[in-house]
Amino acid sequence: MDFSPSPRAAELTAAVREFIDAHIAPVESDIHADIARRRLSGQDPWAVDPRVGELQALAREQGLWNLFLPAGHEGPYAERYGTRGGTGLSNTDYAPVAEEMGRSFLAPLVFNCNAPDTGNMEVLLKYGSQEQKDRWLDPLLAGEIRSAFLMTEPAVASSDASNMAATARIEGDEVVLDGRKWWSTGVGHPDCRVGIFMGVSDPDAHRYLRHSMVLVPMDAPGVTVERMLTAQGVHDEPLGHGEVTLTGVRLPVTNIIAGPGRAAEIAQGRLGPGRIHHCMRLIGLAEMALDLACRRASERVAFGKPIVNLGGNRERLAGARIAIDQARLLVQHAAWKLDTEGQAAVEVSAIKAAVPKMAQEVIDMSLQLHGGGGMSDDFPLAGAYATARSLRLADGPDEVHLAVVARAMLAPYRDAAAARTTADAGADR
Amino acid sequence: MDFSPSPRAAELTAAVREFIDAHIAPVESDIHADIARRRLSGQDPWAVDPRVGELQALAREQGLWNLFLPAGHEGPYAERYGTRGGTGLSNTDYAPVAEEMGRSFLAPLVFNCNAPDTGNMEVLLKYGSQEQKDRWLDPLLAGEIRSAFLMTEPAVASSDASNMAATARIEGDEVVLDGRKWWSTGVGHPDCRVGIFMGVSDPDAHRYLRHSMVLVPMDAPGVTVERMLTAQGVHDEPLGHGEVTLTGVRLPVTNIIAGPGRAAEIAQGRLGPGRIHHCMRLIGLAEMALDLACRRASERVAFGKPIVNLGGNRERLAGARIAIDQARLLVQHAAWKLDTEGQAAVEVSAIKAAVPKMAQEVIDMSLQLHGGGGMSDDFPLAGAYATARSLRLADGPDEVHLAVVARAMLAPYRDAAAARTTADAGADR
Amino acid sequence: MDFSPSPRAAELTAAVREFIDAHIAPVESDIHADIARRRLSGQDPWAVDPRVGELQALAREQGLWNLFLPAGHEGPYAERYGTRGGTGLSNTDYAPVAEEMGRSFLAPLVFNCNAPDTGNMEVLLKYGSQEQKDRWLDPLLAGEIRSAFLMTEPAVASSDASNMAATARIEGDEVVLDGRKWWSTGVGHPDCRVGIFMGVSDPDAHRYLRHSMVLVPMDAPGVTVERMLTAQGVHDEPLGHGEVTLTGVRLPVTNIIAGPGRAAEIAQGRLGPGRIHHCMRLIGLAEMALDLACRRASERVAFGKPIVNLGGNRERLAGARIAIDQARLLVQHAAWKLDTEGQAAVEVSAIKAAVPKMAQEVIDMSLQLHGGGGMSDDFPLAGAYATARSLRLADGPDEVHLAVVARAMLAPYRDAAAARTTADAGADR
Amino acid sequence: MDFSPSPRAAELTAAVREFIDAHIAPVESDIHADIARRRLSGQDPWAVDPRVGELQALAREQGLWNLFLPAGHEGPYAERYGTRGGTGLSNTDYAPVAEEMGRSFLAPLVFNCNAPDTGNMEVLLKYGSQEQKDRWLDPLLAGEIRSAFLMTEPAVASSDASNMAATARIEGDEVVLDGRKWWSTGVGHPDCRVGIFMGVSDPDAHRYLRHSMVLVPMDAPGVTVERMLTAQGVHDEPLGHGEVTLTGVRLPVTNIIAGPGRAAEIAQGRLGPGRIHHCMRLIGLAEMALDLACRRASERVAFGKPIVNLGGNRERLAGARIAIDQARLLVQHAAWKLDTEGQAAVEVSAIKAAVPKMAQEVIDMSLQLHGGGGMSDDFPLAGAYATARSLRLADGPDEVHLAVVARAMLAPYRDAAAARTTADAGADR
Repeated sequence: MDFSPSPRAAELTAAVREFIDAHIAPVESDIHADIARRRLSGQDPWAVDPRVGELQALAREQGLWNLFLPAGHEGPYAERYGTRGGTGLSNTDYAPVAEEMGRSFLAPLVFNCNAPDTGNMEVLLKYGSQEQKDRWLDPLLAGEIRSAFLMTEPAVASSDASNMAATARIEGDEVVLDGRKWWSTGVGHPDCRVGIFMGVSDPDAHRYLRHSMVLVPMDAPGVTVERMLTAQGVHDEPLGHGEVTLTGVRLPVTNIIAGPGRAAEIAQGRLGPGRIHHCMRLIGLAEMALDLACRRASERVAFGKPIVNLGGNRERLAGARIAIDQARLLVQHAAWKLDTEGQAAVEVSAIKAAVPKMAQEVIDMSLQLHGGGGMSDDFPLAGAYATARSLRLADGPDEVHLAVVARAMLAPYRDAAAARTTADAGADR
Repeated sequence: MDFSPSPRAAELTAAVREFIDAHIAPVESDIHADIARRRLSGQDPWAVDPRVGELQALAREQGLWNLFLPAGHEGPYAERYGTRGGTGLSNTDYAPVAEEMGRSFLAPLVFNCNAPDTGNMEVLLKYGSQEQKDRWLDPLLAGEIRSAFLMTEPAVASSDASNMAATARIEGDEVVLDGRKWWSTGVGHPDCRVGIFMGVSDPDAHRYLRHSMVLVPMDAPGVTVERMLTAQGVHDEPLGHGEVTLTGVRLPVTNIIAGPGRAAEIAQGRLGPGRIHHCMRLIGLAEMALDLACRRASERVAFGKPIVNLGGNRERLAGARIAIDQARLLVQHAAWKLDTEGQAAVEVSAIKAAVPKMAQEVIDMSLQLHGGGGMSDDFPLAGAYATARSLRLADGPDEVHLAVVARAMLAPYRDAAAARTTADAGADR
Repeated sequence: MDFSPSPRAAELTAAVREFIDAHIAPVESDIHADIARRRLSGQDPWAVDPRVGELQALAREQGLWNLFLPAGHEGPYAERYGTRGGTGLSNTDYAPVAEEMGRSFLAPLVFNCNAPDTGNMEVLLKYGSQEQKDRWLDPLLAGEIRSAFLMTEPAVASSDASNMAATARIEGDEVVLDGRKWWSTGVGHPDCRVGIFMGVSDPDAHRYLRHSMVLVPMDAPGVTVERMLTAQGVHDEPLGHGEVTLTGVRLPVTNIIAGPGRAAEIAQGRLGPGRIHHCMRLIGLAEMALDLACRRASERVAFGKPIVNLGGNRERLAGARIAIDQARLLVQHAAWKLDTEGQAAVEVSAIKAAVPKMAQEVIDMSLQLHGGGGMSDDFPLAGAYATARSLRLADGPDEVHLAVVARAMLAPYRDAAAARTTADAGADR
Repeated sequence: MDFSPSPRAAELTAAVREFIDAHIAPVESDIHADIARRRLSGQDPWAVDPRVGELQALAREQGLWNLFLPAGHEGPYAERYGTRGGTGLSNTDYAPVAEEMGRSFLAPLVFNCNAPDTGNMEVLLKYGSQEQKDRWLDPLLAGEIRSAFLMTEPAVASSDASNMAATARIEGDEVVLDGRKWWSTGVGHPDCRVGIFMGVSDPDAHRYLRHSMVLVPMDAPGVTVERMLTAQGVHDEPLGHGEVTLTGVRLPVTNIIAGPGRAAEIAQGRLGPGRIHHCMRLIGLAEMALDLACRRASERVAFGKPIVNLGGNRERLAGARIAIDQARLLVQHAAWKLDTEGQAAVEVSAIKAAVPKMAQEVIDMSLQLHGGGGMSDDFPLAGAYATARSLRLADGPDEVHLAVVARAMLAPYRDAAAARTTADAGADR
């Protein structure tokens, strides 16, 4: 048992931290304020801030680029697109790097490591045809375009995939997409060129073979971004979350990823690492909130004392410290299990149920310590809160993940109970 | 002991409910959507929607107007400004009426019963000179103008009033205001004409006699609305929360309410009923969220069942039902104590510590049951959440109110412990 | 709306408090210590302490006797058995009296107001034949004998009454009882002479008509007290909780209460007031724990301060204060509803789900403030904890009561959802 | 980063598990029932059950003996007293072994790895003179005698060591002990021969040099075991917790460990590993409770379903699963830090604040799922609960450990705030 990071993980974590401190932190709040200013004055808040592009160029130059690329699946891409070291990282090694990025809203984008692009790139890497890779993966890895994932639907409880209503009918050489999707992150960005759409291609197939994933150019006829959503008041520029309709969108069948009926299989593979990334970034976000809380509580004075010395504040801060540390270890363990055993579905559900809730609570505590300022945009806490809160729903609500954990842990007992019942029935005869 | 409302309370509660159902509910979400549309398209989101004025006229016509006026303090105003029955209501009787209004964001304004106008009107009613009443109270009661309360400051922990840095220096016949205030609710409204400003007038006086309250016209030279704040992303039109600077604002000393040094005394009187109103409206807001949760959970289907039948959802709904009912009773009891004993400071602190937190939790639970929709503006839950969350800070954070409760409950024990120590010391001699 | 107790309730509450302070409190801990001493030294801990009988005689003399008798159901008994005022109390009026008794473990027994005797007496009062009343009710009201309630079974989940396995077969003029019951409170007392046994009398009847209640003398052949149970280590003398087997116990059919098949109906009537009593006593118990906490925290010194001034202790005490006050109001409201509307099943389930949990948490908090002493028997906290904890299971576990609340609150939504579905189906045609 | 146990840890964990399953589990509940039977029938519940001695002999034979011995500090003892492998284990390697033992109340004693003997043996190992080792350490390692730790006092808040009132006055060649101690675990065992007593030896010294630790034979004149305490009703045989008075106990100064004034230093060293052991055993205890919960909930049926399928039960089980896993990782990390960096005081405080509370909650949840049975002694849950609950107080209450965590995390902020204030003051000049 060894809790120290590998040398490469340690080196990259430090490099990312230094990059953020040196280059992102000094401009980040100004970039966000600028977006807010544009939004309130009727200018386009989605227009790309040139400073982001400059930061991306610098990150790529330093090899702090596409660090999410999974070891063993990155082919020649890590080298070609500038990942420092020229090879991908294990989930275990990427975890602390992702945490570091999570302290800043902008950092994941700057390092080309943001959701949903990372998940989409992984899908292309693992399941895409060479043609699909050439057309979409290369520019995504280069940061020239961005992408979206079109899965969740407004009209049904999307926590149950069998509810999905959108269709991807195959008609000869073509696949025809129809449906309404929302919470499609990334469609607000002007460079968003492609979405991965999920729909029913064969309603009569086994429920794991019913759906297909299709690459859909965002400018294809019939694709409409109906509106950008707010998440607890937050627009989340520069990526944003969109509601998108697809009406009779006709595409060549070659746009289907890995062939018809394989969406469930792909989704399974996509979501494991993606959820680990989300959770590690949330750990970073919670650390950021706790750091602000400690600072604020040490500096502000009320009733003659720094507020850290009032009431239960110290206990709350210590509780947050412990909660974050526990959560980090749980995520690191899941990442390590995924690396060493090749799958960790139950462990990933466990972190997905535990970490966003923990982050929500830590951020809320920090917000409370900041008083009115915490509610406002003067601190990144309201935004952080919305991010954490969203992730109690995105990629499956807490309750669904708890159910996965429960099913796994109860399986042996259910079998034993069944065996006993059978034996009893036998004894009765 | 009798838990039934008085006939007048029952009648007014029913009337308010019917008015909301018949007149406000059908347009409310459209009014909010319109504001959002204007905000996103660069138009003025603060411009008054004419439908609100029409609703106000209708409410006043029906006597559902100024119902907040406190029995025994309303003078001829209740009759003159159309309160049904012509007299004010006790806190006990107003409580269920306020709860009813709390189910809608717009209703308090429609019935001229919204914060901070109600608190400001009460201050003028109880402490204002005839001249002050004629100039400001009459148009406020008529709903012709709106008002703000300028108390909280960004630079200090405002939970401790002795931190207040703004000044109200008296120079001969004039009082000169300087300072920076924020979370001044109402300044976003175009009709906001007057603020009640609180500042230090005599830094050397006893700490209860140090501050004064001054009526400041919002168009007085030196008054600047620096910006409108968001509260967890919510702009809260049509009233909004502003940051306001006052720089050398010169006003006649007759603008001081009740004379110099009486701000603490006035604040004490203002905040009791105001906090009860806030809490009762939050009860209504929580009921609204619970109603939506029950509906959603009964209609949406996942894994073959209405989601109300999945996991712990029923327990969560029942828990919310119980939490709301307990909170309502605690508020009603505080209102009754204030009516019957003339003061209930500890009880008011207790509800202020308990109710916003309860509302936050119930709304968050409902939001979770709504999935992505709950995060968006398609449901009033994100807005309700921000309202409840804000009130864990506004009018004193939870922690300050818990400290008030603790101090009161511990006083007899502290005295007993002190007596024992003295006796011991005596015995030692 | 009026939160003041009636004059009679106020008078009796004060009288009970004074009696406890003057007569019970001075000997209570010594009586418990004596029981513990006997238990540890191999003497009979169940032998009756003569001081209890003296206290009972004094209570009866002062008319503080059988105060639980329900107004309108007490017949001539209130007068005959010395209830002060000569008539029974409403649930609303009895509530504060029961709370007062709940501050002491011994008081309910001293005032002849302890479970399960009160419930059993109510059953006899409302459903007993004259013969049954003469034989059992009179001596119970006189405090000459005690009783038990034989319902819960070890072999099945007794939260679901349809699981009950014990039988009460009717054979001609006789009823034959067989089964194993546990958590039969009261069977440890040497004066326990009669139990009310519940068993299946007609397995084929509708599930509400399947069971009967039968008066069973504890010395009837076939009745065996197998052992006395501990509840979290607590033996709960002088009443205790027993495990009892009944093997072919033959009794005349006239021992059936109200006739065969009426157990469910009787249980329903028995449990409402009984649960209110339990909850009110728990409010008193929680008050006792909070009182001890305040005292201890004000007196003990650590790190140079009374521990009340360390960390979050004040917030915890204030939180307990608020939690108790909310719970009390909820119970009082349920009692009032039962009095004014004749039934309050959902409200009673709500308090049964909320109050024991609240009491458990308050007592645990107090215990923590007492350090090691709190764990020991030097303070009544470990005992209080076991009492509160048991009541999260006794008379239905929390979860069952939450389910009752949920079912009631969701009924209108379910019906609406059903109506909508039907309408949709219609529209589809 | 590597979460797999070392081969030796894996081997010993498996061996301990098999030993418990094969030898301890089959007799454990009978041994406890026997103790209870003796206690209730006036026989001596503290008499040693010969089966325990036989199990100890077998464990020693298999080298599953004194596994707690710390690597690098065990001298020749590991080999001499039969520790498998002949050398001590690191904290990291011992952690999973201790967890395994924690699943059984008896196992720690059987493997000679129980508190407080382990801590006392470590003190002797690290600080004892050769004479002290020969007299006390050898028989302790052989399991021939047992020991106690006399630190906590009933009259003061012992969470603050500076409150300690007991004295160890040095008079020439002798040290004289006076004081009253309680929660001295182990003194109930007939083989308890020696205690480590802590008292003030120099009241005027610096507070870290004020106390001494003295080896006191339990049969020394002036030592009286006043009584055995119950912890939430639990007597905790065969070790128990005693209250002990020491009145003018005269011992040679050579009984002082490591010389006068070194108690604080020794306590610091003793408590780190001891707390890790406690926490790891609690992890095992929580696992035991969760295992019982899963089994019970899968087997018991109510309302037509296994109760695991009712309400929020699955979510509660999954939540417990996650809570235990997080806690285990936190403890393992603290153990690893202690091994690799030589100290981990803050990490140890973090686990001490987090783990007992987690265990308390998991056990309480399991108890609730067991209904009345959970409260009784038919399941080990009431006992497990008392153990976990006690450890929220023993070795420092939660609140003290949270304060340690807070102080450490806030130190850099406090310094920064101080620096800023100084700089501001400089700027003002």
